[in-house]
Amino acid sequence: MKSEKISELTTNRLSVYLRCLNELAASGEKAVSSDTLAKRFHLNSAQIRKDLANFGEFGVRGVGYYIASLADHLTKILGLDKEHRVCIIGAGRLGTALADYYGFKKANFTVTALFDSDSKKIGKKVGGVPILDIKSFSQTVKRDKIEVAVLAVPAEYAQAALERVVKAGIKAVMNFAPVSLKADGDVKLKTVDLTTSLESLSYFLAGGSGSNGKSVKPGRASRRK
Amino acid sequence: MKSEKISELTTNRLSVYLRCLNELAASGEKAVSSDTLAKRFHLNSAQIRKDLANFGEFGVRGVGYYIASLADHLTKILGLDKEHRVCIIGAGRLGTALADYYGFKKANFTVTALFDSDSKKIGKKVGGVPILDIKSFSQTVKRDKIEVAVLAVPAEYAQAALERVVKAGIKAVMNFAPVSLKADGDVKLKTVDLTTSLESLSYFLAGGSGSNGKSVKPGRASRRK
Repeated sequence: MKSEKISELTTNRLSVYLRCLNELAASGEKAVSSDTLAKRFHLNSAQIRKDLANFGEFGVRGVGYYIASLADHLTKILGLDKEHRVCIIGAGRLGTALADYYGFKKANFTVTALFDSDSKKIGKKVGGVPILDIKSFSQTVKRDKIEVAVLAVPAEYAQAALERVVKAGIKAVMNFAPVSLKADGDVKLKTVDLTTSLESLSYFLAGGSGSNGKSVKPGRASRRK
Repeated sequence: MKSEKISELTTNRLSVYLRCLNELAASGEKAVSSDTLAKRFHLNSAQIRKDLANFGEFGVRGVGYYIASLADHLTKILGLDKEHRVCIIGAGRLGTALADYYGFKKANFTVTALFDSDSKKIGKKVGGVPILDIKSFSQTVKRDKIEVAVLAVPAEYAQAALERVVKAGIKAVMNFAPVSLKADGDVKLKTVDLTTSLESLSYFLAGGSGSNGKSVKPGRASRRK
């Protein structure tokens, strides 16, 4: 596998640049310099130039970047010009909520199936997506050319679900179960964990308001930043 | 407001350290050095020492950190020793899925109410959490001392929902609508956006496997990294 040539932090920044460029394009702009892009969206201009230089020469002296052309390149680099077929394991509340999550469509991910083992759910549809028997998982993945699996099962079933997914040949997995899973080296596993976001809100609430900050003494922190 | 004395990246790392310490504690260990902690969990030992130094002197020469004591400090610094009361706006599939999200409990966040404007939903319960009329929002927030609001509404309603929340005096907001919102300076707003995670999977699928990598040429990237 030749994945991960570019660090995930870099691809995350490319995602951000692409969204900024799309916003500029939507407001009718044609070209932008890295400095203007950085100022406008609170980014770092040297970082922008460095990140983009990994993929070629996109800047034009005296002009900056042509927005449409650069957005097109980033779309291709991120693989967003191709549709990716996604299935969701677990047709509970979270799984069915994800089935019509708008962000999937935006990223050119098409949810083609939900899987569950509950016979009361199998055969129903959620927002046009059929709920299929988990027993048919492997053959459905092959038939429908599914590349991505989303795990929306309770924590205690997540590792088994991951193993089933990997066995069926899927290499890209997004896990919503609040548990850390072990995957083989050639499987890309992203766990969506809200804990860090919650703890950042908690820190804000603990230190941010005078009324309940009694147990928190950030000490030197306030002077240092 | 004296929030944000410490950068969010730092509090995110404190969250990670806390989880690592809890794992070590669970396996019966009593003390750990920053070097061992770093090696064991793929962290940076100098960064660990620097981050912790913001909050006091936790290390003991020749011993390292006492795990239970440091975990206790981090719990307090992150405000996790206090319960935070949370409400969810929007009792659709996502909102109801979040109502019994295990991660909230782990972070000492208690979901006390869901709000909706749909009279067919109002009065029902989801996992013990009542669905209340959004018209009673402001008074319920005051009565129940709710500090955090989770927005689980469609994108087009999210900004209005945010304004309602802020007007009711809530300062910490977690937004699940796939849209970027504008909040006042003293409101802490976290938007949970899966786009970046999806695009990172997409990049992996585009560049990671020989069979479909034809449109992606990471160029110098593969030699540099």
